Amino acid sequence: MKKVSTLWVLLSVASAAFITAVSTGGAGENVSPVYGVSLPEGYRNWRVITVAHEAGQNNDIRAILGNDIAYEAFRNRMLPFPDGSVIVRLAYEFKSSPENDAVFPAPQSFVAGAPTNVQISVKDSKRYSESDGWGYGQFENGIANPSVPLVNSCYTCHQKLDRSKDFVFSHYSP
Amino acid sequence: MKKVSTLWVLLSVASAAFITAVSTGGAGENVSPVYGVSLPEGYRNWRVITVAHEAGQNNDIRAILGNDIAYEAFRNRMLPFPDGSVIVRLAYEFKSSPENDAVFPAPQSFVAGAPTNVQISVKDSKRYSESDGWGYGQFENGIANPSVPLVNSCYTCHQKLDRSKDFVFSHYSP
Repeated sequence: MKKVSTLWVLLSVASAAFITAVSTGGAGENVSPVYGVSLPEGYRNWRVITVAHEAGQNNDIRAILGNDIAYEAFRNRMLPFPDGSVIVRLAYEFKSSPENDAVFPAPQSFVAGAPTNVQISVKDSKRYSESDGWGYGQFENGIANPSVPLVNSCYTCHQKLDRSKDFVFSHYSP
Repeated sequence: MKKVSTLWVLLSVASAAFITAVSTGGAGENVSPVYGVSLPEGYRNWRVITVAHEAGQNNDIRAILGNDIAYEAFRNRMLPFPDGSVIVRLAYEFKSSPENDAVFPAPQSFVAGAPTNVQISVKDSKRYSESDGWGYGQFENGIANPSVPLVNSCYTCHQKLDRSKDFVFSHYSP
């Protein structure tokens, strides 16, 4: 167990350094407009914070993952989030599963279909001081969505949250 | 990046050895009836395979995580799953979120509430040859549910799946 813990720490340090290097790329790279946020390599391996479903127009099911800084902050209810926190929200089509329902007593199973988009929130209180410390980006098939209105809508929505939540929707699920 | 990859490999080896040691405990420990499956330590840190929602009586939202053996098998569509694969399904109350909906244009947000239970599937084609290679367990608050009918119902349901799926419901979400 000690060996596993030590490796986690090493991995955390290595990945934190790596993420810092890749999550705030400059113009001309595959980065979001306005904030210059890129898709952190290896994010799919990050630990899960929680899961959620958005009905309505999104109609998706989602996993919210965090890098080690964000994960520990969520888990220990540290607010505001420390600089270097990166939250990744993976969304998928919300699909009924006839395959599963054939086995269950009644139709009840909804699963993740095709990926819709990935949204990233990067905490950097200095760089993103004008958006309450967070920079945002949205990616489809690994490509930054170039829409300025879209990425601006991230902050428009998040800023409506209470400052005491540090403008973050998710809560940690044990 | 090479450093991160190397660490992942080391972590994989260490955690695979560890999980093999803890996921099939003996009688008298905190293990499921029938199969003797325990809750693998560190499972909450495992990578996410997919997410899902069960309506009906369960009414939950869930994250499906895998140890490294299971994760790689899911990701590379390796079937049947190799021995040593462990799949963990974390379920939470499926809850409307008035907190989020207050910010959205319409009520649409459903989140994970309190944890309901954790179900474990362990692949060991020899030990569990009578249940198509899988041993099962269900845990509430970290405690193995002692109900024999309950744990037997795992196999009753999973065996209805096609053998070509190796009796597993989930599919990998990229």
